Order: sequence, then C-alpha cells, then structure tokens
Amino acid sequence: MEKLTVALLGGGVVGAEVARTLLTRSDALAARVGARLELTGVLVRDTTKERDGIPRELVTTDAEAVVAGADIVVELMGGIEPARTHILDALASGASVVTANKALLAQHFPELITAAEDAGVRIEYEAAVAGAIPIVRPLSVSLAGDRIERVMGIVNGTTNYILDQMSKEGWDFDAALATAQELGYAEADPTADVEGLDAAAKAAIIASLAFQVPVAMDDVHVEGISSVSADMIETAAAQGFTIKLLAICERIDNADGTESVSARVYPALIRDDHPLASVSGAFNAVFVEAENAGSLMFYGQGAGGAPTSSAVMGDLVSVARRRVLGGRGQIAQQVRESGDILPVARITTRYQMTLEVHDRPGVLLRVAEIVAAEGVSIELVQQTRLESEDEDASPRAKLVIATHSAVESALAATVDSLAASDVVESVKSVLRIEGA
Amino acid sequence: MEKLTVALLGGGVVGAEVARTLLTRSDALAARVGARLELTGVLVRDTTKERDGIPRELVTTDAEAVVAGADIVVELMGGIEPARTHILDALASGASVVTANKALLAQHFPELITAAEDAGVRIEYEAAVAGAIPIVRPLSVSLAGDRIERVMGIVNGTTNYILDQMSKEGWDFDAALATAQELGYAEADPTADVEGLDAAAKAAIIASLAFQVPVAMDDVHVEGISSVSADMIETAAAQGFTIKLLAICERIDNADGTESVSARVYPALIRDDHPLASVSGAFNAVFVEAENAGSLMFYGQGAGGAPTSSAVMGDLVSVARRRVLGGRGQIAQQVRESGDILPVARITTRYQMTLEVHDRPGVLLRVAEIVAAEGVSIELVQQTRLESEDEDASPRAKLVIATHSAVESALAATVDSLAASDVVESVKSVLRIEGA
Repeated sequence: MEKLTVALLGGGVVGAEVARTLLTRSDALAARVGARLELTGVLVRDTTKERDGIPRELVTTDAEAVVAGADIVVELMGGIEPARTHILDALASGASVVTANKALLAQHFPELITAAEDAGVRIEYEAAVAGAIPIVRPLSVSLAGDRIERVMGIVNGTTNYILDQMSKEGWDFDAALATAQELGYAEADPTADVEGLDAAAKAAIIASLAFQVPVAMDDVHVEGISSVSADMIETAAAQGFTIKLLAICERIDNADGTESVSARVYPALIRDDHPLASVSGAFNAVFVEAENAGSLMFYGQGAGGAPTSSAVMGDLVSVARRRVLGGRGQIAQQVRESGDILPVARITTRYQMTLEVHDRPGVLLRVAEIVAAEGVSIELVQQTRLESEDEDASPRAKLVIATHSAVESALAATVDSLAASDVVESVKSVLRIEGA
Repeated sequence: MEKLTVALLGGGVVGAEVARTLLTRSDALAARVGARLELTGVLVRDTTKERDGIPRELVTTDAEAVVAGADIVVELMGGIEPARTHILDALASGASVVTANKALLAQHFPELITAAEDAGVRIEYEAAVAGAIPIVRPLSVSLAGDRIERVMGIVNGTTNYILDQMSKEGWDFDAALATAQELGYAEADPTADVEGLDAAAKAAIIASLAFQVPVAMDDVHVEGISSVSADMIETAAAQGFTIKLLAICERIDNADGTESVSARVYPALIRDDHPLASVSGAFNAVFVEAENAGSLMFYGQGAGGAPTSSAVMGDLVSVARRRVLGGRGQIAQQVRESGDILPVARITTRYQMTLEVHDRPGVLLRVAEIVAAEGVSIELVQQTRLESEDEDASPRAKLVIATHSAVESALAATVDSLAASDVVESVKSVLRIEGA
C-alpha cells in the first residue's frame, strides 16, 4: 500500500489529538484513504516539553526540515506568521495542506487558494469555521449547484454561553463573563470573543465561500455583546425573542441587476421558535437559506481540542484521498476579483427600540410622526407606565417599538431623531431583529 | 473551456428542476466546475407530455442513446429496474453517475460502488438520504477521520408531520393521516412512509456509510407509527418526552473485542430538550454522535422537488469537478465483506411501559418483582388511579414504568411476564426511550 507522510505544525491540544489519532487509528485510516498515513514530524516551539500523545522523537523546532519531507502539512499554529510562510512553502513544494487557522484565512484567503491551485494541490480548512461542524464542505460542495441567499451563524461559543447565562440566571454581562472565565469558557482577555472579532473572522470565511467573493475580516461590520444588558434580554423575552450574537452573510440583489454581499456580526433578536434560538451553551450552529434547498441548519461543538481535531482529521483524509486518486488538487477559482461589499448602513433589517418617554397625552402620536418622517413603518408598539418613588417626578413610560424592514441608515436616523426629540427622555437600547 | 455532457434519466419534478437549473445557471455552474455543463438528453416514458423547464427537443425514450453520449448520467427514475441497469451501463461506459434513488442504494449499494471503482469514475448520491440535507458527505468525508458511534435520524417527513399533528391537535393516528393525505403530505397508499419502509431504506444507506459495512434494507428492523395512539403521545408529554419515528444506526462493541452494527426504525420517546424533539412538521434532521466531534445535527427539508434538486446539483458539480481535475473517481472501498448486524433482540435500549393494573395493595410490589426477575431495573414508576363510572367494577390504576438500559430481549420478556401476571389487566403500550 502507498504511503503518505504527514507533518504537523503545532503541538498544542489539537495537534496532540491529531497525532494520537494518526498513531492509534492507523489501520482504519489506511482503509479509508487507500494509503498509509505516516506522521513524520511535529513542529513545536520547545522540544523539552512533554506532550501527551506525541512521541518525543517526532518533535522538532526545524520548520524547513519538517515541511520538506511531507506529502501533507497540517498547520495548527494559529496566527498570521510564521503560519502563512510555512503553508506557502508547503504548497510550493507540492504538499497538500490542512489548516484550522481562521485568522489567517480571514486575511489571506485568495492568496492561499491561488497558491494551492498554482501548485496543483489541495488546501482544506473545515476546522477553521465552527470546529467539528461540517460547514465549509456543505457551502462549497453540497450547495455548489444551488444559490445561497443567506447564512446566519452562532459561531462563537463563549458569547453564546454568556448570553445564555444572562438569559437563564438574569445576570448582567459582567457577572456572566466572570463566571465564563472561572469555568474556562472565556479567556482572561476576552476581547476577541466578546467584541465579536472571532465571529467576524468566521463570517469573512463563510461569506467568501458562500458567494465566491473575497471577503476579508476588515470588510465585516462588527458589534460585540458587551453592551447587552439584563434589561434588554428581559424585554426581548417578554416579546418572544432571544438575543444571540449572529454572524450574518447575505447576498443582496441591487436595483440595477448587480449583486452585493453583506457580512456583519452583531447581537440580534431572533424569534424563540427559530431553530437558532434554542442553540444553547457553548454549542455553535449555522443556519443557511438557499434558493432550492430552503432552510438548512448545522449544529455541533464549535471549539475544543477533540471536536477541532475531528474536523482536521476529516480534511486530512480528504486531501490524502485526493493524492491517492491522482489528478489536480482543485479547480482554478473563478471568483470575482472583488465583490461589492455593502456597508452596514445600506443593509435592510428591522429594529427593536426601547425608549423612556414622558408619559403625557400625545407622546405616542409624536413618536409615530418622527418614525414615519424617516420613512420607517412600525410593526408593534408596547407602552408600559414606569413607577417612580419620587411623587414629584414627571410620569414616565417605557416604549418598545418594533419596526418593519427598512434600510439601516433610515432606522439609525430614526433613532437619532427620537433621541433628539422633546418627548423622548432616553433611548435605552436598540437591537436588530433577524430571521423573521 | 472544457465541456461536459449531462444526461438525465427521468423527467419528473426533480428532473425538471435539475434541467431548469442547468439551463438557467449555466455561467455560474461553469465558473464553479471549471467546465461547461451541457444537457444533452432527458429520458422519459412519454415524449408527448409537456414538461415545464425541459426543452421538448431534449426528451427521448431511447435509454441507450442518451446514456451513450454522456460524461455524467443523473438517475432520477426511482425503483430498482431499469434504473440499476442504466446506471451500470453508464458506469461501464466511463460516465460519472449521480443518483437520488434510495430504494436502489438500499439494495445494491456494494454493487454500484464497486462498479464505479472498477470504471475509475465517481458515483454520488447525496439526494438519496434526507433530501437537501448534506448527510452523505459529512458521514463519508467530514467524519472520515473520526469514529461515528451512533446516528439517529428523523428521515421521513410524512410520519414526522403526522406525529406532530397528533401531538399538537390531540388527534388520533387516523385523523392525522387523513389530514396529511388531504394536504398532500401523505400518499394515497401511505404504507411505505407510515410503516417505516422509507426510513428503513435510508437507515440502510446511513449505516453502510457510517460504519463501512454493507447494510441492506432487509437487515433493518422496522416498526411503523400506525400503532401510536393519542393516549401514548399524551402519556409521553406528561413525562417530558416527544414521540418521533427514529432511524437509528449504532456501532456496538462486543465483549470479545469485535464490533457489531445495529440499524433499526421505530417510534421512540426522546426527551423534550433533545435537539431532535423540536424538529417539527415535514422537516428532517440527522443527529450524529462521534468520538471526537461529539454531537452534531443536520437539519433541513428532506423531500420535495426543489430541495432534492439542490442535493442532485451539488453532486453534479462535485462529479463534474472530479472529471475536470482528472485522476480516478474513488478509492477502492476497503469495507468489510459483511458486518455482524445485530438482531433487534440484542440491542440495548430503555422501555417505557404503560400498564392497566388492579388497584389493590401489593400490586406495585408484585410488578417490581416481575421486572426484577428479568434482570431489568426500574428508573421511574408513576401510578394514577383510574376513575370508573361503574361503582361495582374493581378499582384500577394506570402504571407508567420507565426502565434503565437493558438488552431488548430482557425488556420484551419483562413485558410478556407482566402481561401474563394476575395483577396486570392489560399492557396499554410499550415504547423505547432513546437519546438519553
């Protein structure tokens, strides 16, 4: 039986799991691939450190040597450099590549794909988006003959866990974050997760795949969850909504017959009966709408050593099979050079606004006039009198307004007009409603 | 640009949708494939019939001619013959094949795969299981480096719709079936759906893919939903369960170190908080448990012309790309010649039994003795006194018993012993509990 050599770049949790799988499931893998997979080296930073699952004699700090001898290079280092250089070297030497590096793909997707095509080899990256959940292959193969309209994903487990705890326990953001950190669901510096940057990297990859347009992380509009309050979650729940941090990638038909793409990440309201609403804890899910397929959802564990290693191993078997079968690695991508990526101001969405207003006759009429003046139409208004302990204070009410669909810029202008008006004391919160 | 000729066998709803997509999305498909896909013929039974989406000049009744000229043959006829012969002819002539024919695959899977391998071409069949939901590719590629332990699927929309209506409306089976037939969700002869045969064909394909063992439809234990009553659904709901028709494919480690496979279809109880419980209406979902990936779920539309055509088009793009890239079609399958397929009597599961008993002191003790005598242990018992209008009738009670896990044969023997005992008036229902 043919033999294929495999080098791992990175000996962390995922690397150790991949190494262990290669060594312990050798026969089963050979049967599935049609060739033996032989682990020939693991690039690490410190060879003196003990690593469970990785034989000592395989670890090395010599990147060039480990890449040079490999038919397949598996990059699990993370970060842009030196990962990018190692991958380009591997492709140039004719090796197939598997990577789980979302940051790298979110910045250098076209460069890596083109390098693989030029070398006639394959690069796979299922583990870079949503861990163990197969999403890259469904978007790029299974739905390749369909027309994907929209992808909405819960692609960050940390923020989903935090929002979930806030909702279940009535906690505010800081308390939920602190608990998530204690339990190891959030890092000491939670910025990348909490501010939506991790989700934005995944949104960039998903949009690139779904719409064949190069979308980089900088093209993605990002809002995190640190401004979500316990009050906002309660107001949402009272109206049958759940707040989720969504990565949304959308194809938009312009009036002139051209197409644009939108990629954005923000906390949004989705109806409780939407399949994404019940995705709880550290789970991830990706909801896809396509012209013929209709609605699809993919659900599973989006992070962690074992789930990520499952996706890496699937890619490894896939590129190995491709080598056994022969032929070129992948099709020259006929992607558009650059897509028209719509700024968030031009997308269409719905707003839920929570206002504190002076409770006197005519207030609701005045609010309705301001909203209508921006060309926005109201779907629902709920007014609740606010009790005050100070008997001399002027009476106030809470107004929750849900709009119909409108262009974001008009919705934002509506909020500004309301905030500036004499009847509105303060705008308590603004959230978008998605998936309706 | 290279050109690939495509022939369709079958001009029904799915065939028409595939033809329309090939003709209207020609440029987009060429960009994704790296070659132009040219529809050269559509095999139909009656060329005089008008078909929306299929140009008249392409229809023919000459199977040999339409297959002979094609690089890719898409089989959408259904049934065993002549579909099987046409596919084998196509493969032998070097054409790649896409099929949505679950009945054929459930009976002739190894023959078709071997024929494709021998011819050095590829056969794809994503549309044969769960319509638009990508499940064949996740099981055979994405999870190829993992170890799939169990697959539980809601793979028949008709029965899911019926059970859903029974649950929501409190209807009995006959009323729900009649409504499903009126709305077109069930056929005039509903046997294949209602008795679980359609689900069994899909279970056979899923088990073959997940465990690399040839499993035929006859190997699948099948029970349908016609015996499910409104009472059973109510009793289930009261205890936090939903009744779903599940296709279950399981890998079982035997005591002697060997492995067996179980494939079975029956209505079962799953906890309301299980992701499968909320899959409602005509939707399908497949829940997969793998050693490293953990729990995954794939959700979407399992039937219908447009969703099925989406899956067919994905396969079509995939086999076309493979031809453009060159190389062999697929790996020689190193599947075991035959797997040890466990009869249902040897599987491990849990039972929920609903009994009507004479309500007198000592009955519960007697029931507990009978259950224990079969080596089965009880997790929960709930006793409810049954009111009778006849004051002279001996008092009776309803007993709902949930067992812990045990071998099916012991559970079945327990039911027999209870039915034969003097304290049990009748066994009202027996359902298995899954996914716990």
